[in-house]
Amino acid sequence: MKIGFIGLGNMGTPMAQNLIKAGYHLQVYNRTIQKADDLDQASITKCKSPAEAAANVPFVVTMLSEDEILKEAVSGEAGLLHSLQKGGVHISMSTISPETSQLLHGLHQQAGSHYIAAPVFGRPEAAAAKKLFVCTSGGAKAKEMARPILEALGQGIYDFGETPGGANVVKIAGNFMILASLEMMAEAFTLAEKNGLDRAAVANFFGATLFNAPIYQNYGKLIANKQYQPVGFKASLGLKDARLAVKLSQTSQTPMPLAMLAHNRLLTSIAKGDGDKDWVEAFGKGVAEDAGV
Amino acid sequence: MKIGFIGLGNMGTPMAQNLIKAGYHLQVYNRTIQKADDLDQASITKCKSPAEAAANVPFVVTMLSEDEILKEAVSGEAGLLHSLQKGGVHISMSTISPETSQLLHGLHQQAGSHYIAAPVFGRPEAAAAKKLFVCTSGGAKAKEMARPILEALGQGIYDFGETPGGANVVKIAGNFMILASLEMMAEAFTLAEKNGLDRAAVANFFGATLFNAPIYQNYGKLIANKQYQPVGFKASLGLKDARLAVKLSQTSQTPMPLAMLAHNRLLTSIAKGDGDKDWVEAFGKGVAEDAGV
Amino acid sequence: MKIGFIGLGNMGTPMAQNLIKAGYHLQVYNRTIQKADDLDQASITKCKSPAEAAANVPFVVTMLSEDEILKEAVSGEAGLLHSLQKGGVHISMSTISPETSQLLHGLHQQAGSHYIAAPVFGRPEAAAAKKLFVCTSGGAKAKEMARPILEALGQGIYDFGETPGGANVVKIAGNFMILASLEMMAEAFTLAEKNGLDRAAVANFFGATLFNAPIYQNYGKLIANKQYQPVGFKASLGLKDARLAVKLSQTSQTPMPLAMLAHNRLLTSIAKGDGDKDWVEAFGKGVAEDAGV
Amino acid sequence: MKIGFIGLGNMGTPMAQNLIKAGYHLQVYNRTIQKADDLDQASITKCKSPAEAAANVPFVVTMLSEDEILKEAVSGEAGLLHSLQKGGVHISMSTISPETSQLLHGLHQQAGSHYIAAPVFGRPEAAAAKKLFVCTSGGAKAKEMARPILEALGQGIYDFGETPGGANVVKIAGNFMILASLEMMAEAFTLAEKNGLDRAAVANFFGATLFNAPIYQNYGKLIANKQYQPVGFKASLGLKDARLAVKLSQTSQTPMPLAMLAHNRLLTSIAKGDGDKDWVEAFGKGVAEDAGV
Repeated sequence: MKIGFIGLGNMGTPMAQNLIKAGYHLQVYNRTIQKADDLDQASITKCKSPAEAAANVPFVVTMLSEDEILKEAVSGEAGLLHSLQKGGVHISMSTISPETSQLLHGLHQQAGSHYIAAPVFGRPEAAAAKKLFVCTSGGAKAKEMARPILEALGQGIYDFGETPGGANVVKIAGNFMILASLEMMAEAFTLAEKNGLDRAAVANFFGATLFNAPIYQNYGKLIANKQYQPVGFKASLGLKDARLAVKLSQTSQTPMPLAMLAHNRLLTSIAKGDGDKDWVEAFGKGVAEDAGV
Repeated sequence: MKIGFIGLGNMGTPMAQNLIKAGYHLQVYNRTIQKADDLDQASITKCKSPAEAAANVPFVVTMLSEDEILKEAVSGEAGLLHSLQKGGVHISMSTISPETSQLLHGLHQQAGSHYIAAPVFGRPEAAAAKKLFVCTSGGAKAKEMARPILEALGQGIYDFGETPGGANVVKIAGNFMILASLEMMAEAFTLAEKNGLDRAAVANFFGATLFNAPIYQNYGKLIANKQYQPVGFKASLGLKDARLAVKLSQTSQTPMPLAMLAHNRLLTSIAKGDGDKDWVEAFGKGVAEDAGV
Repeated sequence: MKIGFIGLGNMGTPMAQNLIKAGYHLQVYNRTIQKADDLDQASITKCKSPAEAAANVPFVVTMLSEDEILKEAVSGEAGLLHSLQKGGVHISMSTISPETSQLLHGLHQQAGSHYIAAPVFGRPEAAAAKKLFVCTSGGAKAKEMARPILEALGQGIYDFGETPGGANVVKIAGNFMILASLEMMAEAFTLAEKNGLDRAAVANFFGATLFNAPIYQNYGKLIANKQYQPVGFKASLGLKDARLAVKLSQTSQTPMPLAMLAHNRLLTSIAKGDGDKDWVEAFGKGVAEDAGV
Repeated sequence: MKIGFIGLGNMGTPMAQNLIKAGYHLQVYNRTIQKADDLDQASITKCKSPAEAAANVPFVVTMLSEDEILKEAVSGEAGLLHSLQKGGVHISMSTISPETSQLLHGLHQQAGSHYIAAPVFGRPEAAAAKKLFVCTSGGAKAKEMARPILEALGQGIYDFGETPGGANVVKIAGNFMILASLEMMAEAFTLAEKNGLDRAAVANFFGATLFNAPIYQNYGKLIANKQYQPVGFKASLGLKDARLAVKLSQTSQTPMPLAMLAHNRLLTSIAKGDGDKDWVEAFGKGVAEDAGV
């Protein structure tokens, strides 16, 4: 089956590879189309616009990093909205605001096509290993139709109802929880260090006992060892996520002091020139520097 | 073997029961000695003072809730220091400041006895199930001698070196991490609720995926369901732990904005008259009320 | 001289009255034009659109409450940009983001007209008493031309250079400082109250000594006496200002934890349903309630 | 008249000079008695202990920097309590906790002497210029007796009732307000700078208009110009004041997030090694560095 695929970034590329492995032929579009050279050429058709990628297929997946870029790819001059067939489904998988999902849902509805939000949790390695967690929201029928595609990408699909932006809220809440966890570990391990303890021993203990979840084990090790290379996810992208949380806190009138705190930790890091460094460093180094170590 | 046991609170009682099961005869002391009625009477000797409980035994365990009460039980007029035999070991298991451990270590050293810190993680149910995690610090030989006793109480012993207060730092850091996690979940689930999602669905998702550690599963369920009965741990005791974290942050010059935030959440709850309610409520209800839900 | 005047809200109306007193004839526009009934009818011409208000005059003053409304009044279908004469000056006096000033400056430049930002500090009473402080930024010549108009409105003009949005930054910074001062007084007076002191005595002392500035004397009295009626400025408008500060903090990469704190105090008040109450109440009541009084 | 005077630090010395000018003969005690060499030798008697300084006089003034040092000077082995005559008055003028005032009040009561708290606002220059603001609390008769002494030291006396520690609460609240103001200005001026404005122009504007109180004019200039030399008041002493505010917030159950924020700003500065630098630098430099400027 042919489907459209738009956005070949760090996450999009391994996801496209998994779809190819699952037997799909992809009409791919990316701003710098050279990124498509890494894919099996027999299984893809390179396209010159989102509209071309979405032409004559029942599904188009988008994995674009910014709300504005996604909106342009949907309703811009060469947007997918103009070519996606009636009854076709746009599977929107990147981290965006629920507001944008609501807006795009409306546009699709007018055009006779469908929109579902399907943001994912997991880093590029998880995407490659088909270990993403997929959250969905949108019309029940469209979600049902999209299921085989989503199953080819992740280890589990979790549904959050029919409101278009529901899954985006969960994604933003989850990212906030990760940021909060980084701050929490950075404070705890720095407290330990300043009291004469070995950061790694403390991190190992918590990762093996009370906090034995991958997030604490993996990020905990990086923070404990002050090991911020190689860069897995840039601080500037982390701030984008934090800003989504702050904005959602504002629009839904949910005071979130901890979200503000995590946001400012990232903003500080970026203001100091470390926007291209790993987001974990923003927390690990930020807290340690404030403590003079 | 006979050992002393001081402090029959919510935690101390199941711990004493496990020591009895392991074959120890306990010389118990508690301010209200009626608490000892729940223990197997053939396995205990009721004592009238800490000194009496520590007389003629190689070990005395303390599980008292406050630094000041512990200090009095050690070096007060009828304190255990006066009766504990030369070479005897005081196993100090409650949540106290490392400063107090340092002080008591010094007193024991002068008296020819030993002091080790062995604070535990786990609620009363975990204590009853012998599932506590025990952190230790202090002299290597004393820790080695105390090992069988600690093994009768928990599922694992984690050592943090010879500085007397090391394990107390870990305990305070861990409690801070739990408080921070409560704030984090309360904010995330309230954000979800205010955006039209089901709190429980969101909590279940995170507990099953990224945050699949008991803390997130158990406390997450309580916060998601706004279920704050029965009271497992009082907010006022939670504040005591938060104050230990704030104090340690001050004495070790480790700025901890998240610790301050969690501290103030508890302080607010208590100022409003909810000190006897569950500490989880302080976070869950506190965040929700600020969001008008 | 005839000039245009757009926006007859709580601030705009007394400002229009002062311009009339100074001898200007106003071409007024307001969404609900009945507001113009309070003005001297001989000195005004009621207009049906911003374009009409700006036709054939050398100056047009805007005093509109939101960035989006202002943008529409300038460049919308019936916007002032379409009628303002070449060389005419748009004096933009409300609280908006510097980004919007930059944008409008560009539009005016293309159209051959001028834009200056001239936001003011002062409540409606100060506007009526000609006691506003006016901050200006924009082209030197346009500012010089506008001077007589601004002098008719305030007690002092303070210039902040030629960058279009400079004065808006000062206005946002000043509003932030007021919000921070409200939080500060609320915390201080509540601390005093909870320690058995009389809030008013403490407020009087500080207003008479270290903090003898009108802000501390006037708002201090309201907070001390918990007197939040009548409503001078709504909490929802205060939040608008706080959001401008948060946004400017983000776009200029300036971490401002205190701005975040003040923002959340207002957000909490509004989430609880008090958006139409006085902004001072958000702080005064918010802090007191958290302290259980 | 002879009176005792204990504590010749930066504040105590100019205060002692003013008492001498007012005609008092001082029995002075200071840990390093050489400090007394700066005083008119004919008007003082150097003493070897607090007890000696308080012997045979109706009043003894203390100006010591720490609660513990003051307690020792009162009730220690050579404390003033042992020599102060029946009916004598201890005027306690330094920044201490209300708890300490309560304690000392009790000790004096038992001994048949009186205790009043009389902390002051003002820097050493203000002390020299007799421009201190004096806050008082304690027994009415003792305050009345002490009035001439206090009038010789400041420009105004403000009473806060008979509870011994009342004036200490006001002093702590005021110091908190100053710290909060420093944070507020540092954030506002840094926001201005990062948006291309001149910090000094912004500070001048606010100091001349809305915030025309000495605190904003004087500290505002220092923060605007990033001028942190010479050191007027050390960051480490500022932290002592912030800790008193945090502690009072805890004991009186008054959540004070802004106090926490200011506390951490100072703690960060000190952790980074700047404890001996000016407290204004902790805020000015701290905020600017976080913003990358």
